[in-house]
Parts: sequence; structure tokens; C-alpha cells
Amino acid sequence: MAGNSFGKLFTLSTYGESHGPALGGVIDGCPSGIELDLEAIQNELDRRKPGQSAIVTQRKEPDTVKFHSGIFEGKTTGTSIGFVIENTNQKSHDYSHIKDSYRPSHADYVYDKKYGFRDYRGGGRSSARETASRVVAGAVAKQMLKDIEFTAYVSAVGTMKLDKPYTELDLTQIESNIVRCPDADMAAKMESYIKDVRSKGDTVGGVVTCVIKNVPVGLGEPVFDKLHAELGKAMLSINAVKGFEYGSGFEGSTMYGSDHNDAFNNDGSTKTNYSGGIQGGISNGMDIYFNVAFKPVATLIQKYETIDKDGNTVEMQGKGRHDPCVVPRAVPIVEAMAALVIADFWLQNRALHL
Amino acid sequence: MAGNSFGKLFTLSTYGESHGPALGGVIDGCPSGIELDLEAIQNELDRRKPGQSAIVTQRKEPDTVKFHSGIFEGKTTGTSIGFVIENTNQKSHDYSHIKDSYRPSHADYVYDKKYGFRDYRGGGRSSARETASRVVAGAVAKQMLKDIEFTAYVSAVGTMKLDKPYTELDLTQIESNIVRCPDADMAAKMESYIKDVRSKGDTVGGVVTCVIKNVPVGLGEPVFDKLHAELGKAMLSINAVKGFEYGSGFEGSTMYGSDHNDAFNNDGSTKTNYSGGIQGGISNGMDIYFNVAFKPVATLIQKYETIDKDGNTVEMQGKGRHDPCVVPRAVPIVEAMAALVIADFWLQNRALHL
Amino acid sequence: MAGNSFGKLFTLSTYGESHGPALGGVIDGCPSGIELDLEAIQNELDRRKPGQSAIVTQRKEPDTVKFHSGIFEGKTTGTSIGFVIENTNQKSHDYSHIKDSYRPSHADYVYDKKYGFRDYRGGGRSSARETASRVVAGAVAKQMLKDIEFTAYVSAVGTMKLDKPYTELDLTQIESNIVRCPDADMAAKMESYIKDVRSKGDTVGGVVTCVIKNVPVGLGEPVFDKLHAELGKAMLSINAVKGFEYGSGFEGSTMYGSDHNDAFNNDGSTKTNYSGGIQGGISNGMDIYFNVAFKPVATLIQKYETIDKDGNTVEMQGKGRHDPCVVPRAVPIVEAMAALVIADFWLQNRALHL
Amino acid sequence: MAGNSFGKLFTLSTYGESHGPALGGVIDGCPSGIELDLEAIQNELDRRKPGQSAIVTQRKEPDTVKFHSGIFEGKTTGTSIGFVIENTNQKSHDYSHIKDSYRPSHADYVYDKKYGFRDYRGGGRSSARETASRVVAGAVAKQMLKDIEFTAYVSAVGTMKLDKPYTELDLTQIESNIVRCPDADMAAKMESYIKDVRSKGDTVGGVVTCVIKNVPVGLGEPVFDKLHAELGKAMLSINAVKGFEYGSGFEGSTMYGSDHNDAFNNDGSTKTNYSGGIQGGISNGMDIYFNVAFKPVATLIQKYETIDKDGNTVEMQGKGRHDPCVVPRAVPIVEAMAALVIADFWLQNRALHL
Repeated sequence: MAGNSFGKLFTLSTYGESHGPALGGVIDGCPSGIELDLEAIQNELDRRKPGQSAIVTQRKEPDTVKFHSGIFEGKTTGTSIGFVIENTNQKSHDYSHIKDSYRPSHADYVYDKKYGFRDYRGGGRSSARETASRVVAGAVAKQMLKDIEFTAYVSAVGTMKLDKPYTELDLTQIESNIVRCPDADMAAKMESYIKDVRSKGDTVGGVVTCVIKNVPVGLGEPVFDKLHAELGKAMLSINAVKGFEYGSGFEGSTMYGSDHNDAFNNDGSTKTNYSGGIQGGISNGMDIYFNVAFKPVATLIQKYETIDKDGNTVEMQGKGRHDPCVVPRAVPIVEAMAALVIADFWLQNRALHL
Repeated sequence: MAGNSFGKLFTLSTYGESHGPALGGVIDGCPSGIELDLEAIQNELDRRKPGQSAIVTQRKEPDTVKFHSGIFEGKTTGTSIGFVIENTNQKSHDYSHIKDSYRPSHADYVYDKKYGFRDYRGGGRSSARETASRVVAGAVAKQMLKDIEFTAYVSAVGTMKLDKPYTELDLTQIESNIVRCPDADMAAKMESYIKDVRSKGDTVGGVVTCVIKNVPVGLGEPVFDKLHAELGKAMLSINAVKGFEYGSGFEGSTMYGSDHNDAFNNDGSTKTNYSGGIQGGISNGMDIYFNVAFKPVATLIQKYETIDKDGNTVEMQGKGRHDPCVVPRAVPIVEAMAALVIADFWLQNRALHL
Repeated sequence: MAGNSFGKLFTLSTYGESHGPALGGVIDGCPSGIELDLEAIQNELDRRKPGQSAIVTQRKEPDTVKFHSGIFEGKTTGTSIGFVIENTNQKSHDYSHIKDSYRPSHADYVYDKKYGFRDYRGGGRSSARETASRVVAGAVAKQMLKDIEFTAYVSAVGTMKLDKPYTELDLTQIESNIVRCPDADMAAKMESYIKDVRSKGDTVGGVVTCVIKNVPVGLGEPVFDKLHAELGKAMLSINAVKGFEYGSGFEGSTMYGSDHNDAFNNDGSTKTNYSGGIQGGISNGMDIYFNVAFKPVATLIQKYETIDKDGNTVEMQGKGRHDPCVVPRAVPIVEAMAALVIADFWLQNRALHL
Repeated sequence: MAGNSFGKLFTLSTYGESHGPALGGVIDGCPSGIELDLEAIQNELDRRKPGQSAIVTQRKEPDTVKFHSGIFEGKTTGTSIGFVIENTNQKSHDYSHIKDSYRPSHADYVYDKKYGFRDYRGGGRSSARETASRVVAGAVAKQMLKDIEFTAYVSAVGTMKLDKPYTELDLTQIESNIVRCPDADMAAKMESYIKDVRSKGDTVGGVVTCVIKNVPVGLGEPVFDKLHAELGKAMLSINAVKGFEYGSGFEGSTMYGSDHNDAFNNDGSTKTNYSGGIQGGISNGMDIYFNVAFKPVATLIQKYETIDKDGNTVEMQGKGRHDPCVVPRAVPIVEAMAALVIADFWLQNRALHL
């Protein structure tokens, strides 16, 4: 295994490069008898796909998923589920400008050093196109976990930040705008901000917040596989992520214990939720919520200097179809990875603790 | 496996409860022929142990590690390394006050729900005593990786925060004070702050920053096992951790790409290091640095209300020997987990890419 | 993970049912820079494919493998290798005769009990068609291990058994006959025997012997992952396998130590090789050899009684296109699994012991 | 991980050398709430321990297991179970005779080549003393699986072989003699045979047969983790094992399908059981049975020639306390490994298929 699999019991193994013939994957460990709504799976892919709005990359890809196995008469069979997403728009571009040069803050340099050479077309395996496979598997996981709700949204774009916690937002409004921010006013501002950034050939970072509701008590495995540790790994494995915090997060590190402790109600729920729904690495039945920080995309539509393979300074001109800000498209990816983590612990818990 | 193992090739499996007879573990995957300095390993344990200074818990434990296997004539043999740390101070306390009640923001409630009952003595398996085993294994990993330097320090206690980046600090001064903050003035302030918090029976959170120098280019495995994703999981698996960020971190999400990109020098190093030494999940040879946020310890030496097993409200009085702020003792734990992650990827890279 | 992956570092995950749209898999952990001979891979598939001779099933499948990722400019990139083999001959048969009934000594009954229902078309996931994916991955492994030779052959069909050890056979003659037995006389007898068995609508078992030459000293990991233990698991995971023995095998259990011990030559090689090239679970540089016993195929072209889902006795008539004896087609599968095991240990050894 | 762990969900990690201070291990994945009978566990160890009878090694070891964690108020807590078995009889022998020389058919040579040096005292990690830890974990697994019966016995010593299948033997008689053969007459013959072999300073091999009753339908995971494939790996990982066969085994490969197929009774059971309780890698509810072949112990109490590190011929004189035939002591080890395999699949099945 060289890093292309995720999960212990509900496992996803993926393959595929940005400009190869196809992406795909194998889901292993999905129990039998789950009626799969294939349209719902495709819908999740559509939320992630390029070209969906004016503020994302204009690459044209239908991103249609085809299942090869593991489903029979509409239900999962309990055997491995293979799927493929063809790359339809990968025709022979001219990549000579990046073939021998290293774009700053991309993976070009490290791939060449690690592997000796690289598939330089569109970033190859380091491209976020890979996350399409995650969205497929996450959508399957969501259907397995039908009572659990996964809801992510954009809570910051650059320095523009939603001040309200998720509990004060109308999360039904997330898909009502192309930024995927549940506050309409803020969404409008973020949208014009992103357009402005794009018009300069620049990019900007942002934050995605995710809320998971109706998680049963008891998911997560002490001591190394704490629920939030796996969520953190899952989120940090998404392209461009720089940070993860759950519950009170970094802010919580500035607090006193007497303020931070979550007092119990008599039914076992808590009056506050600084814990973020997780105590000792195990879900406690309260909402799980966390923030994921994304850096600005490294590809600028600007002229800049960098180095080539031999260490010579070269001038490059960014071009192509890139996202000026990844967070709107990252929303379904964050949800998908959250669903994969919960699915895995849900199965682990069935094995060990019920 | 139920969460008590860490690592794919350099693997640590741990066991042990706070007040059981002993803690211990098995290190599997350590190559043969490494001359182990056992005193250096014990020194790392001593940096973590209780009772070492006026601002940590006064529990008395020698925390002496004994090795049972895997070492012969002073060198690792390549077989699994078993070790044990006896609990010498676990005598029969009176735990009746916590036996049937759930302390807020502890793992008491979730352990009872998940497992049906719990070892309530001193927190059982959910106690941070378990991290002693991690420090042992991390110390072995450090000796395997002798050219790589792992340096952690306290960068914030509550709202008191070091403003300077690690590059402007004298990291040789970390062990010169009991807070483990490399800035003497700030350390003095933090120390009196922690004492003040303790005198009120309260606790406070903090941040540990870690720097890893001399990591070779190429460690980390795309796409799920990105180097920073495993570092994040490792840190989030430490008791009381609420957040992780590397390189530019959350701050990076507010920046423009044109400011955030790290331009190359002709030798492949970069002029800035917002990437935090990792690009595309793979080390690029620059310093790796990251922040780990710790919540305030949940155990207060105060009177408070909570619930018992049956949902009745009960009054409790916190007592015992607890840390008012965990970050000084967390410093060697953060280093140990960082060493375990790097050791694992170093071995993986030998297998797959050299 | 639910049993659809094999290997720790050189990992194969497979999917696909006998009569679904396609089979396929993901190879993860193949190092970069290996020049892949795709024709050689297809050749291995052709050795396994149905319809290749008069003594195997007459199902018509081209079994053409298409690679989707992990290869660029003719070389492996170090990223995961996705591949697909389409099922071209899976059109709507009439399966009503097996839909609700359980064929004796097939997996029909246990799949229904385990999963609640099953893809009954052609055996679904329990069909040996799945082994096509193993042959692809094994062919990649062979190319990675180019100095190591994997040679399997048919050593018994029913009670007809080659008496000579492999050292007295001309292994270059294996592919000169359709039985894949290196002794021409015996091959001829076996061929007419298989034809005779088929003419009666019956089937018969057999044995495949495999020899691996040029394995470096040191492969295999004590104590649970002994080289022969993984070889045994690999072989026993092939459809219809009932037994595995290596070196002196079952015969060795009847011997005295004074006869069985392999005395050393001064160069570290041994005068005899009852050990089968493995001591203490680790390769010693001598030839590795082992036997794999296959049961007679359960599908008979005869009339017989069995039960349906509800436990009623029903009469069935075997039909379709089945192998009267699997061992000729099992030869490349045995080699493929052997190559996967050696590839995995070869990588593990690079990580841990060189 | 370097081969010192077994199992996916019910996992055992072991450590310890023959003459180090202690052996031990960590059991991870044992569910909570199991009342452990510690005496029964010690009894299993006693069945394996040296010095128990006149036909086994006379090394004196009490082999007392101490548990360090994971048990509270007599029940498992669901956290990892650490245990230790001290080596009490490892005092400084004179090992100079084997330090620099390689005993034939031992692991001396391959350990030196693989690891660069070795703990030569009593075989170090390659000694079958390691199996004591397996017996402890297997005994825990047996208690988890209380309705399932694991019964192993000696079915052959050298060329002396029980002709009857297990169904015609009185398995309650196994422990009535020191050979652990359920047929009293044969046991007596085997005993005097072993004594005779020992008197010559020689050793002899043998076969252990194991029967598992009351396994529920549905255990085992297609396609790589077939139940018999994991059983095979488990058995082959025991020291000195050369072969494994289940159900009809090697004999089955000589049969016709029309004779070998197991016809169903109307309740889903089968009239015959050539399948050995496993079809398609999944348990079918019938008895599981298998044979495990052990080679003759390599240590002879004789004079012989071999080579030293530098390839020089040297004369050695076998001495020490060794088993003339391992199968009597192997009986509880075979049962223990069988229990570990079934425990693991039982948990996997709870996760994925119930």
C-alpha cells in the first residue's frame, strides 16, 4: 500500500491521473442489502464537478460514474464495488511549459524527486481530480448511514469570515448560491470577491465548516484512532488543506477549564458543546463540527519566475482552467470524507462494541 | 485492531490503564543494527513524567522503562521490541466519587456507553498516562533517524502567545525553563500565569509548536497518506488536542496565492516556507513546522454539579493530582509522535521509492 | 476491508463478478520507473483465459486488460495502477435454474446465508473469473522482480501423478502441451484422461507444483508472516484449492531429523533442500518449491438432486461451459500469486533490512 | 509491522526471545464484557509448557502469564490486553558453540543474513517459545467464542498414522495420554516410538489434526481472506509446519467431482463433508477439520558437521533440552491459532454481514 487506500473496514482504494484515460476506485467493506440510489451518487459528483458555475474552473467534464460490480438488482451485494469515471477532456494539450519546470507550491518538484519522473499533464496524480473518486465512495457511505446528516458549507473566503456559529445559520440555504455559504449576504460578497480575485489572475484560500448530526454515541476507537484524529487525517488528505480543528478548536486552547467544560443535562446531552460532539476520541451523541482551512490555489494566471529540472531560472506563464478559490467545490469533498470516516467507525463499532 | 496501534511499517501497539499494574507496548518494524542509547530513551520519559516541576501534576511515578526483547548486545535485532513501564503509585485510592458519576468533558460517559462499563480508576485507558509508551517508541524512532531533529516547544498558554515564528527563537533554550518556552521572558510570565490558574483550582489550554529539520525530500505517500495528514492524525490522537495546522495553517487560508506561493531558489529550496516543508503531501526538504492546540484539562479542583449513571444530578468535588496546563509535559509527546510518523514514512520510502 | 485486497506493500485490490460489466483492480505500491511490457502481461492473461484449448471451458472471452493509470511513457509512475477487463460474453443467459437453488459444493448456499441474497449469474463474485485480475497484477510483479523465475506446472491430474521431482524435469516443456505438464508422455495421458472425464459430464482434481528460482536470501518476516505462510495463504485463496505443502511437505512429517536436515555447503547453500528454500520463514537462497492441491470442479454436466432456498428437494441439470479439470488454467494463477507474495516481501525487506 | 502481528480485528502482537527476560504480547480488539477465566488460560499454557511429560523437552519453565491491562473486575474492558510471561530459566548458558556457527535446517543462517547479526541464545526470536504468547491469546479467543469447540490431536508420528477419520474417534480421550492421540493403542505405540527416537538423539515429524465444531454459517471473507486461507496461514506460521490441508485435502485432488460433491440435506447441512465445513471460503455450518504437517525438529543430540560464519567446516555436538517430536506440545498451539482465526472472522462478520 502506498497511500492510495483509506479506511480499515469501509475501505476506498483509488487510482487515476488528471489527464489519464479514467479515474476510479474500489470500495471494499460495504455491507450487503443497501438499496443504492445511483442518481443521488451522481448528484454528489455534480456538486463537485468542474464548470458548474462562474466561480470555478471551466474545464468541461461530465464526471459520470459507472459501477462495474458489487451491485445487483439495485442493492449492494457485500462484495467489492468497482467504479470508473472517464476523463473525456484530456486530449493532447501542450504541456511543454511545465514538463521540465517546477511550478511554485505545486507537487511538481517533490514528485520528480520522489519518483524520478512524473506524469506532468495537469498535475497527474497530485491533481485534485482524484477527489471525484472520494465523492463517489462518500455518497455510498452516506446511503449506508442514512440517519446521519453530513452538512458542509463555506465559512470563510480569504479574510471574509462568517462570524456566526453553525447553530445560528440556516443550513438549508447552502445550495442556494454558488459559493455554498448559508448566509445570503455573505455569499454575495464572497462571490464578487472571488470574481475580483480571478480577474487579477490570482487565487485566495478559505475555510469549510462541516456539521455531522445524529451520530450515535460510541463511535471512535481509543487511543490512536480517536474519531477526531481520523476526521483530521481525512480532511488533511484533501488537496490544499492546511489545518483542522474541531469543537472549540484553536480558540479552545485560550480558555479556562471552568469555562470550557460541557456540563451535562440529565439525559446525558450537554448544555454547551465545546467538545464538538467527541470526548476521549469517542462520539457523545452531540453534533460533531469542525473547520477545514484551505490554502489559496497555487496556479496563478500570471507571469512568474521559477526553476527547471536543472536548477536554471525560467519564466512561466500560468494558463489553463483553474479554480480561483477551491472552497465552493471542496464542500462535497469534505462531506464525502466525513462520511467515509463515520462509515468506517460505524462498522468497527458493530464488530467490537455492540 | 481497535485503535491501539499506530504506523504501517514502524508500528507501535500500546496497552495499559492509569491505575493498572503496568503500561507497555510492542514496537514492530524497527530495523536491525541500531545501537540504542537506553539512557536517552529514559531521558525522554523523564521529560514527560509527573512530578518533575512545580507546574505539573504531583503524582509520583518513576516511569522507568524496561525492555523485554528485540535488543541484543546493545543493538536492535530487527525483531519486535517489547517494553514495560510499571505503575508504582496506583494503590487503592478511594474512587467511589467517580465510579458512578460522569465528570464533564471527560471520557467517563462515552466509555460507559461504548463498553458497558469502565475502569474508572484515574480515567483508566482514557488517561494520558498511556502517552508514556508513545514517548518510549518515539525515542527509539529518533535514534533510528539520527540526522533528523525534532524540536517542540510551548508557544502559547491560554491567551499568552509567542508572536515570533520559530525561526526567530533560540530553540536551544527550550529546556532552560519548566514551561518549555524558548523565550525566557514569556516563559516567566507563563509560569506565573499557570501557578495563578492552579491556585484557583482551574486549568488553561495552550499550544505546542514543533519543528522538524533535515527531513529528506520525498517522505509522505499520496493521496490519503500525505505526510501532514499522518502528522495531523498523530497529534490529534494525543489527549486533549483540539486542532492542528502546518506551515501557513489557518492564517494561510486568508492569503492570496500570489503572496502564499513559495518561490524556488536554484537549488530547489524555497525563498519562503508557507508550505511548511510539505508539498502535495510529500516533504520538500525545507523545515516542517506545525502547531498543536490543547484544550484546558477537564479536571478542576472545584466543586461542581454533574450527573450519575442514572441521570441524577450529583455534586462532585474535584481532587487529586492534576496538571493545571498540559502543554509543558506535552512537548516530548508531540516530538515522539512526530518521530513515529517520520520513521514510518522513512521506511515506506525505502521500500517504494529509493 | 472485506477480503478483496492482498499484500501489505505491494497490494492488489480486486472487484468484479462473473457476469457483471467488468472485472478490475488497483495495484498499489508498485515502485516507479519499471518499464512495463504490456504484451507480456496480456500473454499471461491469455495463458489463463477460457477457450484456449480443447480441455478447458469453451466460454469465449478475449480477456483484454486496459490500464487506466499509474503508467506514463511506458514506465510505472509509482502511483496506483488501475486496470479493467471487460466481460464481453455475459449476455442474458437463463439463470432461473440456479437462482433459487443451491448447487452442491458451490458457494451458492453460503453466499445467500452470509449476504442475504446473491448475484447468481455464473457464480457472481465466487467465480474463478476473479483470478484474471490476479494474473494481471502478478504479471506486473514478475516484471518488477525480473531476476526471479516463477515456474508452475501440472504435476497430477486425479490419480495420475508425476513421480519425478522438479529437478529431474525439463521445465522448458511446460507450455508445449495443453495440460501444462513438462513430461510429454504423462501430458498425453493426462490429456486423454481429462477428455474422458469430460465426456462423462464429470470433473477431476489435480495438483500444481511451483518452483521459484533466484530468490535472494532474507525474504519473509518472522513470526506470523513467514514466507511459506503467506505463500500458503495466497495459494489457498485460489478457487478450489484444498491443500498446500512446501519443501518436504506432508512427506517430511514422516521423516527423521537426521535424514531431513539440510547440511550446508561452504558457500551457505545446502546439499539437500527438504527445507524448500525457506528456513524459519525466511528464504535461504535455495529454490523454493511447493505443491497446491485442487479439488474437482463442482459443476457437473449431469442430472442431480439438491435443495432450493426453502429447503425443498429439486432436480437440477448441470449445463454451461465449465472446466473438467482446473489445473491447466490454474498454472498461471499459481505463478501470479507466488509473484505477488515475493513482490510484497521484497519491498518489505527493502524497508526493514537492507 | 514486520510480521509480529496476526489478525485484522482480533489482533495479537507478540514479542520475546527464547532467552530474553520475558515474552509477551498485546491483544487488541477483544470486545468488552467477557468474563475471563484466568485459570483456564493458564491451563492452556500448561498444556504447551516444557517439562510436562517424559516425551517433551525437559527445560524447566513455569510459563506463568500475568495480565497488565484490559481486564477490570474480572471482565474485559474493550481496551487492549497486555500480558507477560517471564523467562525464568534463561541464565547464562554457554552458547559459544552456536554463536558463530549455523545449525542445519535452523534459522541461524537466514537470521544472520537478513539482520546482520542475531540473538543466538536458544534460537532467539526463531524459537518456538514465542508460541506461548499465541496460546494465551488463543485462550482468550476461545472464551469469547464460548459456543465453538476447538479440538486438536496427534494423528501421526513419523510413519505411524491413525487411519480413522475424526468422526470415528473418541475425542474426549485426547488428554488421557501424553502423546495427545485419542486412540489409546496408537498412543501407546507412538509414545514408545518417540522414546526410541529420542534415545538415539534423533527426532521425528508428525501430523496434528484439528476439528472446529459449531462454527456459524457465514464466517470468512471472499476473495483473498477465505476462511481456509487464513487457517492455512495461521498453521503455517507455527514453527516447523510444512503443510496444511482441509476437508478432503490432497486426497481430494485425486477424486471425481461426482464423488466429491457434498449433497445437501433439506436443512442445509450436507450428507458428506469433503468440503471440510467451508465452501467458497465461507463456513457452511458443518464441522471444519484440517491437518497440519510438522517436520522433525532440526536439533539433534548428535555430532555433525556444519559451517561457521566464514564458511569454514566445523564440527558441532547437539546438546540441550529439546523435543524429540513437537506434535504433542503443538496440539494446544494449533487450537490457539484456530481460535484466533475464527475470532477474527467472527468480529469481521459482525461488522459487515449481520
